[in-house]
Amino acid sequence: MRHQVVIIGGGPSGLLLSLLLRRKGVDAVVLEQRTRAYVLARIRAGVLEQGLCDLLREAGIGKRLNAEGFVHGGTLLAAHGKQVHIDFKALTGNSVTIYGQTEVTRDLYDELDRTDAPIYHEAEGVEIHGADSDAPYVTFTHGGTSHRIDCDYIAGCDGFHGVSRRTIPETTRRDYEHIYPFGWLGILSETRPLQHELVYAGSDRGFALCSMRNAHLSRHYLQVPLTDKPDDWSDDAFWAELRRRLPAGLAESLETGPSIEKSIAPLRSFISEPMSWGRLYLAGDAAHIVPPTGAKGLNLAASDVYYLSRALIAHYAGDDDHLTSYSATALARVWKASRFSWAMTRMLHVFPDEGEFLRRMQGAEMDYLAGSQAAQTALAENYVGLPY
Amino acid sequence: MRHQVVIIGGGPSGLLLSLLLRRKGVDAVVLEQRTRAYVLARIRAGVLEQGLCDLLREAGIGKRLNAEGFVHGGTLLAAHGKQVHIDFKALTGNSVTIYGQTEVTRDLYDELDRTDAPIYHEAEGVEIHGADSDAPYVTFTHGGTSHRIDCDYIAGCDGFHGVSRRTIPETTRRDYEHIYPFGWLGILSETRPLQHELVYAGSDRGFALCSMRNAHLSRHYLQVPLTDKPDDWSDDAFWAELRRRLPAGLAESLETGPSIEKSIAPLRSFISEPMSWGRLYLAGDAAHIVPPTGAKGLNLAASDVYYLSRALIAHYAGDDDHLTSYSATALARVWKASRFSWAMTRMLHVFPDEGEFLRRMQGAEMDYLAGSQAAQTALAENYVGLPY
Repeated sequence: MRHQVVIIGGGPSGLLLSLLLRRKGVDAVVLEQRTRAYVLARIRAGVLEQGLCDLLREAGIGKRLNAEGFVHGGTLLAAHGKQVHIDFKALTGNSVTIYGQTEVTRDLYDELDRTDAPIYHEAEGVEIHGADSDAPYVTFTHGGTSHRIDCDYIAGCDGFHGVSRRTIPETTRRDYEHIYPFGWLGILSETRPLQHELVYAGSDRGFALCSMRNAHLSRHYLQVPLTDKPDDWSDDAFWAELRRRLPAGLAESLETGPSIEKSIAPLRSFISEPMSWGRLYLAGDAAHIVPPTGAKGLNLAASDVYYLSRALIAHYAGDDDHLTSYSATALARVWKASRFSWAMTRMLHVFPDEGEFLRRMQGAEMDYLAGSQAAQTALAENYVGLPY
Repeated sequence: MRHQVVIIGGGPSGLLLSLLLRRKGVDAVVLEQRTRAYVLARIRAGVLEQGLCDLLREAGIGKRLNAEGFVHGGTLLAAHGKQVHIDFKALTGNSVTIYGQTEVTRDLYDELDRTDAPIYHEAEGVEIHGADSDAPYVTFTHGGTSHRIDCDYIAGCDGFHGVSRRTIPETTRRDYEHIYPFGWLGILSETRPLQHELVYAGSDRGFALCSMRNAHLSRHYLQVPLTDKPDDWSDDAFWAELRRRLPAGLAESLETGPSIEKSIAPLRSFISEPMSWGRLYLAGDAAHIVPPTGAKGLNLAASDVYYLSRALIAHYAGDDDHLTSYSATALARVWKASRFSWAMTRMLHVFPDEGEFLRRMQGAEMDYLAGSQAAQTALAENYVGLPY
């Protein structure tokens, strides 16, 4: 079997890359370890930068996004007794769109099905061979049969735990990691969102985020110790604690209800350099993880996919410059978005091992932010997404 | 003896307060522990915010400042392979003025002498009594004789090690402190400044700052371990290390020469709350210390003195509102300037106990700063000084 590009990973990065390549006549196959049902059931991000929305439209799947996505022109930060509304639209002319990653993935699958794009689900034992040679290939088993796909290029879109990054020798690769001393307990519930826009709340009891997927589906989070388990938290305990972390005036209007999903995720910053090795190119979580505070995970995957699709399309049109510069170009944006995610996380959470001084610095930052259009603009331009 | 206000401390804060009060007919006496020669010999800050310059002019001592001060419309940050010029003037419409604290102090003494303002130098064993009563007084010995001054109010301008803050009971007071794991080795030399404006250089070997007092007097600093002593550093070693920390293109033009003064200061953030207790009001270093990175020490003392002089003048005109709100008003600005000083320090120094991740976050911040007018404006508006 032979394809121009083998894409490892059938999450939104891999699917979007496949579609963008196909639109320009580049032949790509997707290998996904899980079933489609599993991929579609994953609850993930829901805040889409303009750049990602534009990319989905360019890929021909903007219809449902346009109809069902909620455009958010701002967000509310409530911490240290202050409430600061960041008006994205007024400050940057830009906005974000609320549309669940699950919906993005569904739209991508529907379109790939329509165009009979080759996707192998439950592809097991995927291995990358000869990525540093001129004749790379990928092996895997599918339905009990061994397969080999020869290709020109391999795109590693298989996430943090995938095989792609680990294929790059440790002597070549440098990993940067920062672990935060807490996790996020998240629940999904069929309740009315707290406000039309997201509310970031930093209380002395810990951070909370009131987000949503649509007008009837809320996604709420609480900062919790890493030792907590989801079963430690009844729905009642979750809602009571969330209410305590919201400022007066907002807490009262919180609508509660049974949780549909409940999980705890640790917070991590991780970046692996370089993002390419020979004919292997990494994109998304395979190369980097950000804490969710800045809503950057899916959006960074999208900018990687943008750069990589552009590079591969240009290659088949005879120009290799973008392929050569892919790692450096993608990483420049990754580092800046990682910095923003780290800074937002630092500003809003309680760090149990750090003293009162840091807590007061956070308060001073909120106080400064409340009075500075420049500081609000800096936050807003990062939140809506730095330019590709 | 009786005066309306006793000012403890004859540094720039106490002297400026005395002068501003006298201009409005409020009678104040200054008690200083050291000799005038000692106070005038102290090498300190040299970057004056517009607010402080305006205050000096209001106090009637703007003449030499206007003639000899250098107006700086910007500064250069050079770190992580990037050089970012922050154009204060273009971004904020404002600027800073280079004029040594020593010169400010000299101008203040000259003017106070001219008006026969009462100042006791070498006032020993100063003690504050009854600050929480309606009849406070201060005792001290001077020239072997014991003195008592009864007063309405006491202004504590006697610095971090002074008696004023310690007079506030520990049950009332809350101190916040953050120690940085390095110091600044500073030298003064009769050499040409590196550039017309200040150069902040963050290299992998540590931070360096090229500052100046005038066109022939340079003030340079190196980040050094807290265990270093000034005698560990010959002039040659200092210049060689400074050159290594400057970017190529700047290092070559560094003019070197013998040092006039050489000292090491630890970096500390410290804030004591509240800034008033009964009839005692703290101003400047008596209540707070910032690391020198943001050039905020003297400038914060100046805004305290502005608020306190305004409050005392209003009191004698029959309005106590500003006295009541003094601590909260001063602290709001203090916390924000402390946050800026902390953030500048965090961005530009090497933190030996923190990993590569922080180092890369610093690099990403420089990279972001280089491309963002909003981030540059936020830095500039803090550097030139948030409004009083």
